Amino acid sequence: MPVLSSIRTEFLEQKPLSGKRISATLHVTKETAVLIETLIMGGADVFLTPSNPLSTDNDVAVALESSGVPVRAWRGMGEREYLEALDWAHSHDPNIIIDDGADSIVRAHVNGLADRRTVFGALEETTTGVVRVKALEAEARLRFPVIAVNEARTKNLFDNRYGTGQSTIDGIIRATSLMIAGKNIVICGYGLVGRGIAMRARGLGGRVIITEVSPLRALEATMEGYNVMQIQKAAEIGDLFITATGNKKVITPENILRMKGGAILANSGHFDVEVDVKGLYALATSIREIKQEVEELSLPNGRKVILLAHGRLVNLVCAEGHPPDVMDMSFSNQALCAKFIVKNRPQKVELMQVPQEIDDKVASLKLASMEIQIDKLSKEQEDYLNSWKV
Amino acid sequence: MPVLSSIRTEFLEQKPLSGKRISATLHVTKETAVLIETLIMGGADVFLTPSNPLSTDNDVAVALESSGVPVRAWRGMGEREYLEALDWAHSHDPNIIIDDGADSIVRAHVNGLADRRTVFGALEETTTGVVRVKALEAEARLRFPVIAVNEARTKNLFDNRYGTGQSTIDGIIRATSLMIAGKNIVICGYGLVGRGIAMRARGLGGRVIITEVSPLRALEATMEGYNVMQIQKAAEIGDLFITATGNKKVITPENILRMKGGAILANSGHFDVEVDVKGLYALATSIREIKQEVEELSLPNGRKVILLAHGRLVNLVCAEGHPPDVMDMSFSNQALCAKFIVKNRPQKVELMQVPQEIDDKVASLKLASMEIQIDKLSKEQEDYLNSWKV
Amino acid sequence: MPVLSSIRTEFLEQKPLSGKRISATLHVTKETAVLIETLIMGGADVFLTPSNPLSTDNDVAVALESSGVPVRAWRGMGEREYLEALDWAHSHDPNIIIDDGADSIVRAHVNGLADRRTVFGALEETTTGVVRVKALEAEARLRFPVIAVNEARTKNLFDNRYGTGQSTIDGIIRATSLMIAGKNIVICGYGLVGRGIAMRARGLGGRVIITEVSPLRALEATMEGYNVMQIQKAAEIGDLFITATGNKKVITPENILRMKGGAILANSGHFDVEVDVKGLYALATSIREIKQEVEELSLPNGRKVILLAHGRLVNLVCAEGHPPDVMDMSFSNQALCAKFIVKNRPQKVELMQVPQEIDDKVASLKLASMEIQIDKLSKEQEDYLNSWKV
Amino acid sequence: MPVLSSIRTEFLEQKPLSGKRISATLHVTKETAVLIETLIMGGADVFLTPSNPLSTDNDVAVALESSGVPVRAWRGMGEREYLEALDWAHSHDPNIIIDDGADSIVRAHVNGLADRRTVFGALEETTTGVVRVKALEAEARLRFPVIAVNEARTKNLFDNRYGTGQSTIDGIIRATSLMIAGKNIVICGYGLVGRGIAMRARGLGGRVIITEVSPLRALEATMEGYNVMQIQKAAEIGDLFITATGNKKVITPENILRMKGGAILANSGHFDVEVDVKGLYALATSIREIKQEVEELSLPNGRKVILLAHGRLVNLVCAEGHPPDVMDMSFSNQALCAKFIVKNRPQKVELMQVPQEIDDKVASLKLASMEIQIDKLSKEQEDYLNSWKV
Repeated sequence: MPVLSSIRTEFLEQKPLSGKRISATLHVTKETAVLIETLIMGGADVFLTPSNPLSTDNDVAVALESSGVPVRAWRGMGEREYLEALDWAHSHDPNIIIDDGADSIVRAHVNGLADRRTVFGALEETTTGVVRVKALEAEARLRFPVIAVNEARTKNLFDNRYGTGQSTIDGIIRATSLMIAGKNIVICGYGLVGRGIAMRARGLGGRVIITEVSPLRALEATMEGYNVMQIQKAAEIGDLFITATGNKKVITPENILRMKGGAILANSGHFDVEVDVKGLYALATSIREIKQEVEELSLPNGRKVILLAHGRLVNLVCAEGHPPDVMDMSFSNQALCAKFIVKNRPQKVELMQVPQEIDDKVASLKLASMEIQIDKLSKEQEDYLNSWKV
Repeated sequence: MPVLSSIRTEFLEQKPLSGKRISATLHVTKETAVLIETLIMGGADVFLTPSNPLSTDNDVAVALESSGVPVRAWRGMGEREYLEALDWAHSHDPNIIIDDGADSIVRAHVNGLADRRTVFGALEETTTGVVRVKALEAEARLRFPVIAVNEARTKNLFDNRYGTGQSTIDGIIRATSLMIAGKNIVICGYGLVGRGIAMRARGLGGRVIITEVSPLRALEATMEGYNVMQIQKAAEIGDLFITATGNKKVITPENILRMKGGAILANSGHFDVEVDVKGLYALATSIREIKQEVEELSLPNGRKVILLAHGRLVNLVCAEGHPPDVMDMSFSNQALCAKFIVKNRPQKVELMQVPQEIDDKVASLKLASMEIQIDKLSKEQEDYLNSWKV
Repeated sequence: MPVLSSIRTEFLEQKPLSGKRISATLHVTKETAVLIETLIMGGADVFLTPSNPLSTDNDVAVALESSGVPVRAWRGMGEREYLEALDWAHSHDPNIIIDDGADSIVRAHVNGLADRRTVFGALEETTTGVVRVKALEAEARLRFPVIAVNEARTKNLFDNRYGTGQSTIDGIIRATSLMIAGKNIVICGYGLVGRGIAMRARGLGGRVIITEVSPLRALEATMEGYNVMQIQKAAEIGDLFITATGNKKVITPENILRMKGGAILANSGHFDVEVDVKGLYALATSIREIKQEVEELSLPNGRKVILLAHGRLVNLVCAEGHPPDVMDMSFSNQALCAKFIVKNRPQKVELMQVPQEIDDKVASLKLASMEIQIDKLSKEQEDYLNSWKV
Repeated sequence: MPVLSSIRTEFLEQKPLSGKRISATLHVTKETAVLIETLIMGGADVFLTPSNPLSTDNDVAVALESSGVPVRAWRGMGEREYLEALDWAHSHDPNIIIDDGADSIVRAHVNGLADRRTVFGALEETTTGVVRVKALEAEARLRFPVIAVNEARTKNLFDNRYGTGQSTIDGIIRATSLMIAGKNIVICGYGLVGRGIAMRARGLGGRVIITEVSPLRALEATMEGYNVMQIQKAAEIGDLFITATGNKKVITPENILRMKGGAILANSGHFDVEVDVKGLYALATSIREIKQEVEELSLPNGRKVILLAHGRLVNLVCAEGHPPDVMDMSFSNQALCAKFIVKNRPQKVELMQVPQEIDDKVASLKLASMEIQIDKLSKEQEDYLNSWKV
């Protein structure tokens, strides 16, 4: 994690978070430990709770605690313990909330923290969390500014497109040993994630078919040289189907009944509803577990299809999710946004974008770590750009 | 032009512009004639003037006039005649201004038209024009709404990325017979145009090198597998250099002195300042015209470089600019935006984006003309997307 | 394995191997079991021994045996037991030898089988085995015809290029979680395997650098848009190095000392000598096993590099080797070549290529299994091709 | 032409053709003039005649003649003059024949030259010529060795794949302004030329469809990610059709009647029979010349299709054929093969391949001209490769 590493050095020197309290609600993993240490080096007191009852690595939790970090996290916490942990962290009147899914932000609006006016602002890591904050804002109930770290270009770019693109295909190959070359790969959805998967599937020799509901995206996919068609038609020719839409029932039992024998179904979207898994299980006349997370379902028409990861995120379930490169960029945005909030104390209560200069800085540090140098505008060039009007 | 063609059919039936007057300031070409006819079929009275003193095809002007369209345009108009033509069109109190470069819009703020309050709104085709309108708006001098047709996705997508990408390489091959495969192709600027050129140069077997001033764009280029470096270093290894930045002096005499003998210089940006052409001519010890628009310049260091099109837009000068596909999309946006203004009469005086539904409609018509069908959201899926918050 | 499956149907009907004895020396795996069953359905008596002391899947061996197939194979056989198994199989006077590495073929020239003149011919699966047979032939010691199954286009195409290409990258990602996009991937060797890896590394967003000793191959790589340079220079910029040359000491300690910290070394060639592993271990000041088959070696210059699979075949050690698609094609060639030998009884004692019609048939069956239909020459077209001379 | 240029330097020093007579039958162009001069610098006397009655550039012929080269060539020679020119050149008892199409080689077997035994050998530039020489050889009538320069890798690689690939697409874009991105591009034939075109069509954003008669090639195309289908089906969806098969009636009137309105037909094969042009003209109800070499044909079903270059080679007719890079490589092979024949005096009368060392040398010189350096085998590595058997 070279980017976060260079931010650590800076934090150690400048102590930009000196005396500030941070309540961090994150998956308790090795990468998170590095972020926590960075924040502490920057002068902060950090209180750590998990963002999901199941995602805590107990070894990491213990190690952090024994080095003096206040942690309330263990794998398999109950729902109540999970909320109590949030309340515990909030009881220390944090100035900054770092969140992953918006549970901590939402809780702060319920347990009195938001009323105590100690919170300078919050940072949200995920799409889901950002959507929830937007809902709060739409109902005029939001009480402190929130930065949508999720939407930083240096987060999105690595995470959604390149990270998920590679790891989705990786998960599928690990699960099935499928040779991608020469296969018809149907990708439902041509957002950032779908684009990433499409690039990689094509890059491995697959013939990519895109399904979409947006005419604009469909047109873009067409112009990129992909085949675009309706799922109903794609169903008949695909060897592998991957959903990446954020929607439900994108692949239905009706579609599945049209598929060739041996067709493989995988999902790369957040929830396990994109392939209509319930409908599929109801349809199947028998289910055979070929290996862990790989099921062969027999259909009434005599054909069999393969479902991966029970329709859950195939890159996380069948491979290892994001490479460290990705977390490096995401957490660097977190650290720099924390510094930004302390320094600038934004007064407007709203969902904010990550400041362009932070996005640029993370990109610059990443380029530097890759030993890539770029040009700088001369004074004359800057003036030219600003006087463009004429 | 299948998209515009289907809009004609619709206009003929619905007469959405019935009784409205349109002042159109456009390059007077065959494609423009099709747009004018479409507007007339929609019920409009159209007054046509040129957007550039040199870009009128006299045959088209005569043909339109003899079919009854009021036209004031001929190739080689003087500056005064050019402005008088605008005033003439404006004297008919147009409800809509269609513009290409903002000369008509600006003139309307000077010659009294804007004060007469007959203008419902204007439509601007170009980046340059949009920038000028923004300047008017920033100084609070804008008097009627303007739609930035230039910024429609169905305009940008075709025009900047795919259109310019293909036609730039086309122009260079026509001028030089260069085999792209195996060559080092340096592209300065990784905006939409630079991306388009990079895709095509790679697609023809070139090894693409990108120079940039934005760390974010540089990082994206890196992640796409391109080599990113400073122009100073790229200068030493490039076989072909293409500028696409919108800035000046992107390639300087100093850079050129580092280049290999035989290096080729081309520009794909709007103005002829991206390669420092003046500096280069001053530097050259002799200039030989190899063929039209292809010059070989001898340098003081004994090497020779090739400059295409005197540093002007290589796709227009050495090839034929945009394919009809591109104009089809741009002018379809124009026609539908004209209808939108008549129907919706936007009251807020500002620079507006093309409404999403128009962009979607153009995309849909384009897809239909390609016989591509896409999926539709079910009611259940729409509801799911809207209740996503939880 | 749809191709082999359709050959089974044909064998069952036609019994082309009726009454023939086959000695098969192969890795005793599930895929091999399918081949053995196919041969038996074709009418053959098959005697199975392993092609490597360590590659036997005992469950498969037991299953075959309990279904009546004579097998002498278990995991961890000693050298003597291994040879005795060959002699046992040969004692049944096989008409056909199926081999993988040429141990059985060579042994037949030693243990008297070749002298008994019962062998119609042999089939060799591997490059290594083919090289050994060539050596026998060069010394005029070969006693029966051998078909180089390894060199069938339908074997090479799937195996060397697409199979190894995908599985090599797969192995590296599983071992390291490396994001390929944006990385400098150095591939040593631009033969079929190197080409396959290069295609895939580029397809995943990598910037591919090729090193070669053949000017022709280097030129081809250049024309494909890859960077070609000497290993000495590539060493300084690579993030990942993959050898695929068939040669030794392709990456030397001297090269490794020039590498960036964190550089990853992997081999995709047959033997573990392409990266000079011995030299590297001797050089290292310390070795840390990060995880199974992933070692971090500290160098005297203070940097660290990562070695995968101890320099052995990364696709087999860190992933699962070839997908079933690949074995389907290889074993289909085996089955059809066995039939060919019985039917045609080739008399010339030599190393033969797989007959074109077999290669075509396997390709046709594969296409049929993918539901792909192609054109046929008309009589008029065939005549035209044959009278082309004029 | 940097490669030929460095060979000139070598020839000037070593005079490898000293005192030898060469009869050269080639298209009389600027590039040919460079080859002739190179041969003369090498010490040869060269007699030049044209390889086609229409391909002589009179200016070049005059210039060569006035510099003392014996030339008998002018544009528009009659058939008899053409043959007399060959006899004239042969009357000087050449030691080497350089040929392009085999007219000179065949004539030498008729006019007595071959009987005089002065010819050391001949060099043939084209596929067509090689086929004719094979016919002579098959009938045991060949009287001197012939080197198939056409089949050098450094000739094929540049010419057939990369040269024709780029220039075919170039010709089509010049003729039609077609935007390739998003179009269905049907390529008939997946030999070297078809592969080159497919790479470029995909590289420009096209969706490539391949038709083939060889299952092996069809399978390769499939594995490369192209769509493979029968022409009958491809006819219905293609926007652009390109033939590259070497066969006749590959696209028939029956196919054309299935095409969409506006479909474009082009040929990249040697003769104008791949699209059944005669059948198409017979079918058309009317023909309109849109511009030079671009015809719009109305079909009985009411649709219209576009035929380019009357079905002749679209890269030569609508663009400028091969870039100089290509001729540089081809003619370098010619010059070095001439030297080889003088030095080695091959005694076996047969069609020979270009010696590997010449192919390697041309590749090396090309790499050097591109400033690309490659590795060399060490003594230890060479020994390893030779002792590989064990």
